Amino acid sequence: MENKKILKRRLAIRSQKSPGVVTLITDFGLRGEYVGAMKGAILKVNPRCQVVDITHRIGPQDVLEASFVLKNTYPFYPPGTVHTVVIDPGVGTRRRPIVLKKDGHLFVGPDNGVFTLILSAGGPTEGYELARGEFFLSPLSDTFHGRDIFAPVAGHLSLGMDPKVFGPRLRDFVRIEWPRPKVKGKKLLGRVLWDDAFGNLITNISREEYGRFIGDRPLQITGKGWRIDRVHRTYGEGQPGKPLALFGSAGLLEISVNRGCAKMALGLKRGDPLTITPV
Amino acid sequence: MENKKILKRRLAIRSQKSPGVVTLITDFGLRGEYVGAMKGAILKVNPRCQVVDITHRIGPQDVLEASFVLKNTYPFYPPGTVHTVVIDPGVGTRRRPIVLKKDGHLFVGPDNGVFTLILSAGGPTEGYELARGEFFLSPLSDTFHGRDIFAPVAGHLSLGMDPKVFGPRLRDFVRIEWPRPKVKGKKLLGRVLWDDAFGNLITNISREEYGRFIGDRPLQITGKGWRIDRVHRTYGEGQPGKPLALFGSAGLLEISVNRGCAKMALGLKRGDPLTITPV
Amino acid sequence: MENKKILKRRLAIRSQKSPGVVTLITDFGLRGEYVGAMKGAILKVNPRCQVVDITHRIGPQDVLEASFVLKNTYPFYPPGTVHTVVIDPGVGTRRRPIVLKKDGHLFVGPDNGVFTLILSAGGPTEGYELARGEFFLSPLSDTFHGRDIFAPVAGHLSLGMDPKVFGPRLRDFVRIEWPRPKVKGKKLLGRVLWDDAFGNLITNISREEYGRFIGDRPLQITGKGWRIDRVHRTYGEGQPGKPLALFGSAGLLEISVNRGCAKMALGLKRGDPLTITPV
Repeated sequence: MENKKILKRRLAIRSQKSPGVVTLITDFGLRGEYVGAMKGAILKVNPRCQVVDITHRIGPQDVLEASFVLKNTYPFYPPGTVHTVVIDPGVGTRRRPIVLKKDGHLFVGPDNGVFTLILSAGGPTEGYELARGEFFLSPLSDTFHGRDIFAPVAGHLSLGMDPKVFGPRLRDFVRIEWPRPKVKGKKLLGRVLWDDAFGNLITNISREEYGRFIGDRPLQITGKGWRIDRVHRTYGEGQPGKPLALFGSAGLLEISVNRGCAKMALGLKRGDPLTITPV
Repeated sequence: MENKKILKRRLAIRSQKSPGVVTLITDFGLRGEYVGAMKGAILKVNPRCQVVDITHRIGPQDVLEASFVLKNTYPFYPPGTVHTVVIDPGVGTRRRPIVLKKDGHLFVGPDNGVFTLILSAGGPTEGYELARGEFFLSPLSDTFHGRDIFAPVAGHLSLGMDPKVFGPRLRDFVRIEWPRPKVKGKKLLGRVLWDDAFGNLITNISREEYGRFIGDRPLQITGKGWRIDRVHRTYGEGQPGKPLALFGSAGLLEISVNRGCAKMALGLKRGDPLTITPV
Repeated sequence: MENKKILKRRLAIRSQKSPGVVTLITDFGLRGEYVGAMKGAILKVNPRCQVVDITHRIGPQDVLEASFVLKNTYPFYPPGTVHTVVIDPGVGTRRRPIVLKKDGHLFVGPDNGVFTLILSAGGPTEGYELARGEFFLSPLSDTFHGRDIFAPVAGHLSLGMDPKVFGPRLRDFVRIEWPRPKVKGKKLLGRVLWDDAFGNLITNISREEYGRFIGDRPLQITGKGWRIDRVHRTYGEGQPGKPLALFGSAGLLEISVNRGCAKMALGLKRGDPLTITPV
């Protein structure tokens, strides 16, 4: 059968060792030299690895958003991928640079909570401090450890170097709190975490928390001046121009407008509250 | 002769099979996890292929713009490149996911008109529905087929898999209408389609339609409050600060300002009309 | 010792010839087909090289900013990298397309000053005009030499082609002036050059010029409505919400706000003056 032959071929090609993938999540934005300098410092160590932009538009110093984007991208990458996360307001101060190993993936960045959602998912995590200066750029700057520490370490990891080489084993890591929705009387109180390029508003209400709270009962989702009466499955099911709710691809409840912009239509922004009430 | 030797070397290097190129055109924007998750799902299938960002800033759900950008980028890529286009307002509803083969290139995306300008160019096109779920991510989401269907299929195609493997042959595809300029009396009526980062306004008047209408006759191009008396060849030929017209690299008439921003200087935006009149 | 073994392995992997790295610095922005078409034209020549986005958000036609970003990224890349800089307001007019070789790196772009800071750094530079049309795309457009000239030449260079192949040796190149700070009486007068995604303001005062002027003396840095009394080492040392000054990773004095946005907090923008005074 043709398909079998093709799958065999795919396996044959895949068995050639991949030259490595290094991903980048930063709040550097897309102007200036920061992103480009980091990519160079990775490629100088491993010129054959592929450097992949995930996003450089994490909100400035928004450690929670970075942790969320990381959680929702890393499992889709091949094992062995090195995920580099540089949201680093404490650069040059006492926060520790670290490497984590989990699920066959490697994670590099500051120990300031960006790895919270990696650490809180079940399963074993190995972590090490990046303490051995011979892997860093020299001279080491006080303001750009993305380029001078994390990038060259990521390059070395992409060559297959063992994370334990970089420094002492660590057992405790900084974690930040995920802003969970609150049950208050008969209501579930959530809030808008982020908006995306379509103007969809992503809330902090997960499919699991929603299910535990409401089950299959009829409900209302309400905010300032708007109301939604059910949860849909796809964007296309809503009436054009009307608000709808659905669970997005990351498993969080979203407020959306079919072929429109919920952010503008409803005047919603990050931090705004919403309420789920059984009816 | 040195040059010959170098060309031979180039051929020798090129004859090593390329590990594959997969391009991305989306309206996902540059924030959040969408683009990064798609890239992962491609690389998990083919960790050696190169994933190339064309643009993620297609206007939300602007199928026409995506079709235009695709038409003006794909021919510059090496044969065998897999072009992935995810402008997908109907995700999770009945629109079909498809793969097309044309000119030695492969195209993956929803059958909603994004491939209009590929289909309408001459030459044979082979198309198949993406129907075989074993190539998709599992579980399959209702809201993100870019990640769950198009990305892994693109990865497989970049490994050399035959497009016919993915599902039944299709003969008809959704097409959208290109907004052609209209002849009205002695005038050619066009409009602004898009603007670029320099503030140039790209119109719907192609070099061919312009030539048929005006030939070599003197002309005026007019809009609200501005007039241009000829078509230049380069941006640098205009007087600094004054509007000029030229045919851009995609063969469409552009309204521009040498070392300035036509969009701001003339107050023009997408959809605005302009008129060509022989004088 | 384990580390030695690993370093040996790294060397072994690195000794496999890299398929080449081509970087891109442009003012094209992230919409439309420009960036994607250029990447295609590079990969069509060398489908195995890695095309790396440095930035496409240089200010429109800001040759100085491009030169600065190039200077602060190229040294971090592996030798042999081809750096492609397309800030090209004179496209299609008489400005010359060129290739430079310096420090084992290759540079491709228009001879309009974008390479000023490469040329003014010490050490020998070899330069050639890109004159041999057989390396260009055909037909050659008048408006997009990034795609039609610089991209295919960069592709050839990434295959190891000698720069002298492309045309006659050049001895003189266009340079623009770097806006140096001025000493006036007892004051050093500088200005804001750029801002970054964090709202930091990068000034034209280098560490060297600062050191020569002020040495270790106490100082004041002042602008319209604000005053800073010392230079810090890291962003984190400042009081949250208060302005601070430090030397950024490119060696220029920055005005910043710890965990805030100096641009908004101080109402500063590009071109604004600042003064250093010994106290």
